[in-house]
Amino acid sequence: MHGSEILKNERSKSLFCTCEMDEFINGKSAVESRKKMLGIIRDGTIDENDIESILEIIGISTPFELQRSLFIPILRQQCNDDQIEAFLKPALDYRILGCIAQTELGHGSNVSGIETTATFIKETDELELNSPTLTSTKWWIGTLGINATHAIVMSQLIINDKRLGVFPVIVPVRNMDDHEPVIGITVGDNGPKMGYNMVDNGFLSLNKVRVPRFNLLQKYINIDKNGKVSRPKNVDPRITYSTMVKNRANIASRLGTQLSKAVTIAVRYTSIRTQFGSPIESPVLDYPIVQYRVIPILAKTYAMIGMSHQFFAQYEKTVQLINTGDFSMLKEMHVVSCGLKRWSSEQAVYGIDTCRHVCGGHGFSMFSGLNDFFNEIYPNIIWEGDNYVLAKQISNYLVKSISGAKKSLQNPDPNDTTNAVYRFCDSSIRLYSWSRTDPSIIANSKDILLDVLGYKFVSMVDELYKNVQFQGMNWDDASIASQYVATAHSEYIVCLYFSRHLSNLPPDSPLAGILSSLFSITALSFLTKNTADLYRYFNEHSSLSRSQIIGLETEYLEKIKSIRDQVVPLVDALGVPEEKLNSSLGRFDGYVYEDYLKRALDNPINKAGTGDYIREKFYDSYISPVLKGSNGYKQKL
Amino acid sequence: MHGSEILKNERSKSLFCTCEMDEFINGKSAVESRKKMLGIIRDGTIDENDIESILEIIGISTPFELQRSLFIPILRQQCNDDQIEAFLKPALDYRILGCIAQTELGHGSNVSGIETTATFIKETDELELNSPTLTSTKWWIGTLGINATHAIVMSQLIINDKRLGVFPVIVPVRNMDDHEPVIGITVGDNGPKMGYNMVDNGFLSLNKVRVPRFNLLQKYINIDKNGKVSRPKNVDPRITYSTMVKNRANIASRLGTQLSKAVTIAVRYTSIRTQFGSPIESPVLDYPIVQYRVIPILAKTYAMIGMSHQFFAQYEKTVQLINTGDFSMLKEMHVVSCGLKRWSSEQAVYGIDTCRHVCGGHGFSMFSGLNDFFNEIYPNIIWEGDNYVLAKQISNYLVKSISGAKKSLQNPDPNDTTNAVYRFCDSSIRLYSWSRTDPSIIANSKDILLDVLGYKFVSMVDELYKNVQFQGMNWDDASIASQYVATAHSEYIVCLYFSRHLSNLPPDSPLAGILSSLFSITALSFLTKNTADLYRYFNEHSSLSRSQIIGLETEYLEKIKSIRDQVVPLVDALGVPEEKLNSSLGRFDGYVYEDYLKRALDNPINKAGTGDYIREKFYDSYISPVLKGSNGYKQKL
Repeated sequence: MHGSEILKNERSKSLFCTCEMDEFINGKSAVESRKKMLGIIRDGTIDENDIESILEIIGISTPFELQRSLFIPILRQQCNDDQIEAFLKPALDYRILGCIAQTELGHGSNVSGIETTATFIKETDELELNSPTLTSTKWWIGTLGINATHAIVMSQLIINDKRLGVFPVIVPVRNMDDHEPVIGITVGDNGPKMGYNMVDNGFLSLNKVRVPRFNLLQKYINIDKNGKVSRPKNVDPRITYSTMVKNRANIASRLGTQLSKAVTIAVRYTSIRTQFGSPIESPVLDYPIVQYRVIPILAKTYAMIGMSHQFFAQYEKTVQLINTGDFSMLKEMHVVSCGLKRWSSEQAVYGIDTCRHVCGGHGFSMFSGLNDFFNEIYPNIIWEGDNYVLAKQISNYLVKSISGAKKSLQNPDPNDTTNAVYRFCDSSIRLYSWSRTDPSIIANSKDILLDVLGYKFVSMVDELYKNVQFQGMNWDDASIASQYVATAHSEYIVCLYFSRHLSNLPPDSPLAGILSSLFSITALSFLTKNTADLYRYFNEHSSLSRSQIIGLETEYLEKIKSIRDQVVPLVDALGVPEEKLNSSLGRFDGYVYEDYLKRALDNPINKAGTGDYIREKFYDSYISPVLKGSNGYKQKL
Repeated sequence: MHGSEILKNERSKSLFCTCEMDEFINGKSAVESRKKMLGIIRDGTIDENDIESILEIIGISTPFELQRSLFIPILRQQCNDDQIEAFLKPALDYRILGCIAQTELGHGSNVSGIETTATFIKETDELELNSPTLTSTKWWIGTLGINATHAIVMSQLIINDKRLGVFPVIVPVRNMDDHEPVIGITVGDNGPKMGYNMVDNGFLSLNKVRVPRFNLLQKYINIDKNGKVSRPKNVDPRITYSTMVKNRANIASRLGTQLSKAVTIAVRYTSIRTQFGSPIESPVLDYPIVQYRVIPILAKTYAMIGMSHQFFAQYEKTVQLINTGDFSMLKEMHVVSCGLKRWSSEQAVYGIDTCRHVCGGHGFSMFSGLNDFFNEIYPNIIWEGDNYVLAKQISNYLVKSISGAKKSLQNPDPNDTTNAVYRFCDSSIRLYSWSRTDPSIIANSKDILLDVLGYKFVSMVDELYKNVQFQGMNWDDASIASQYVATAHSEYIVCLYFSRHLSNLPPDSPLAGILSSLFSITALSFLTKNTADLYRYFNEHSSLSRSQIIGLETEYLEKIKSIRDQVVPLVDALGVPEEKLNSSLGRFDGYVYEDYLKRALDNPINKAGTGDYIREKFYDSYISPVLKGSNGYKQKL
């Protein structure tokens, strides 16, 4: 059967309306914006608004995007009123192009280790920026390679020989008339990289460059002309945290829509690709080993997108509270956003990789759409806090939370983590919802699955707490267990938020059944990937028996199988446009091999003209001398 | 401290001689060949012999290498005496350049699904080669894109309308005088790919192309001019298996030396890179979370290289037996080679990835040496049998082996798998070597660790056997468990072979202690990555208690820590030359950041001339219009 008929046939088995599902999982406004933007892209008139939607459709980074997504937000956050006029307004008009110069050649995550200095020179009322060593060279600075005119340089502020910490100073790096480097500045592109190649990451070295004192961004710190330091009273620096929270949450949310692309390609192509079977070869998607690799990724994609709506709703509530001076939710949101960024980036990067592998050899072709894409997404596991470093912050918060519960602190901050910790640390519980419960009931109950996930993460935190508190384990050694603790916490939060999003569905919705299956697959994938945790942490009256654990593994495989027929419509419902897929293998219409061959034939090397020229040159220079034996290559018989 | 001093200091802590270790782990002949080849490369006079060693040093594929590694070996195997004169001799002289056209656009691992036909035409005593469909287009054929003059086309042989199966036919694809495609042939490059870009993979479509009957490679099949088929009696087709065995074993062995490169970069750079810590930042290699990620890869690299010596020794024995007509060892060698290819490629690809991640942001730079490298190694998980497909073959063999043991078959084939299966299926055993044994004793005993690994894989196979035999599980469903079974088997074999290689050491060797630690870390990494297997399969009188299991996890972490000071000398001893590392981060001399910055500055975009031209053009076309507002970009304040 031709790919186009196969997909038609797959779609005919759908038990739900893909448009309805698309609106539920991605959100109505996102769907509308996508449609509008696709209209704009397809008829060629681009409006300056709604750029974010277009970038989301294009799916790759663009040369000026950090102006919008990084430079402007930092200026908004750090400028006082005069600086808004001087820096933010020109930035908004793109009359200056900027970058954030934080990372140094020898210093990554540890901001306090930054070596670049900004020394106050009282005589001239200036700051002198300097890179004292090779390792202090600013590195990886996006937009700096060839574009930026200005940099916000994160530097050690020194006044009267005293170091005050790291602060942002705005420094012109290229002249506004000819774009040549400003005197004292060495700047350039920091070389080829694995991916993200539309953005010009660059390096910067400052040799005693002077700027006016005014260029220190002053929302949270002031220096007067005598070098006296003061901190404005009307702003709370904790607000800067909320920006980081939103950045990380945005990353987590976008990674869900990125993984949509990979899983759409994998599902469509594995339904078309055939292998083995008799008398005719079977679609590889009919093989359990392929379902087992692809379908959990599909479920987790739904979970990632679904949970992000809930995260943003909570974030909005947090911001509203902050505006009334109440910061009580901020810490939880901060930790959750770190966890979700960490978890989502891991899932997205290695999910894309699995999708690539499951496409067989063709996954390796650039026409699969999965290779540049993998490289583009990859740095998410490193930037905005390396995932391994983030885990320590998360587990630190969790251990403190357990510590509070152990001391029976009254009135803890009311949030999801604390709720779970207090609930599952309660030693008076004699019977848990999963105790002696049939695995098929557990696998189909959102509440029980959430309980198991919650109990699991709390038990892991509890063990870490005891090791650190009573067994003398130091935090560096605890960093290994912290990775697993942080992951277990995120898995609980993801399922909790996803289940809340699902509770918005009317109970008679035709989407409810399939979404419940996706929820179960997601939760069971977390529980069964390493059941050692279930054997180890569930014992005495909280125990899961050996046969319950094996039963959950069986339920997991059955659930995966049971939604086989819905997976093509489910990826359709993710709404990834062809413009974003950019893949022969993932084509909506199933014309996989036609498109693949066409792209190969369109390859310049195969064409007349340039192709002929290259091939002839290659033949004359390398092939012909070999064939004619003039190179002396010879092997023994 | 400068990187160069750091590495000097690390080396001063070595408890062994790196040259001695290099010879032991890589083998004396490999070390000598490497030294000779480095001499040749470095003084610029390249000899036509020892090409393999040079390719190993270069570490990337080259345009004509498949002639040597694939085309010639297949001709050697499949040609009869006349064909040796006609095809093999010109190939050895490089007077023809060839490729193996097996894979088709729609058909990968399943050779019997190949659609290309070779029909015997009695009238003209020819074979007519034809590609009947789009999906039968030959695809991914290495060397075919622009180089090859001949293809060995794997095709369905049809005689008198009867299909005889898939056989190799040699077909000229490009004219010998002008290198233009032969009439009836469409051929070209199959487009950009993720890596392996020195080799020109291509496509081929045959439109009723005729070749003489003689071009059917005839070592194992003959057709006479009347179309009568016969099979030569003096050759056993099972011999072709032994070539596949060697190919896969070569892949596994080479992947060990490839992983050497990645782990050398990661170890050297993490010993130089500093983060956090006070008063001064600490080398990240001092952090347990970094050790935990890098050191097991180092240990497994030693295990991979070490075990391959043992594999080749067994292979030689197998070939000797085959020459006496005894094929009894072939099946085991075949399965072991499938397993080792599968296991090694998984370890190498994701080991390289971990090494990249542990280098932080700089791992993402092409100057790390790890990005092209990852892409180059990646297809090993797919080619020579996709890893997921191989697992099924392996577990099938293992289940048969258990089945034999259950039936108490007398005189089973004497091999490592059968030995383990018979030993651990023996229900009369009342006390296993690990029973009630302290974890620290287990962790330090090669014999007990091997027993635990052996018992684990046999128990997993036993469960699969019971499910298939008595619970009605079909083989497609069994494919999921097969993945874990195949991995557990390979882990046992790797440790078994590695321990045999270690037993070659004199007991008083200064290398013995550190190599034992590497063995323990390797074995414990297998046992602790998912202890669910220990909870699940070790029970009743074979049990490992909960505290033993947790104890093994603790021992594992302690072992990792304990060799911290030896890791720089250990990577030195792997003997990876700078030519192969090609990495700023992994430099032997520790001049990491100097080299990194120099490479960035040497980047053409940063140079006068071409760089100026590109930057100016970019400025005039894109940056200046934005800055001058003529593009209309504007955001709200």
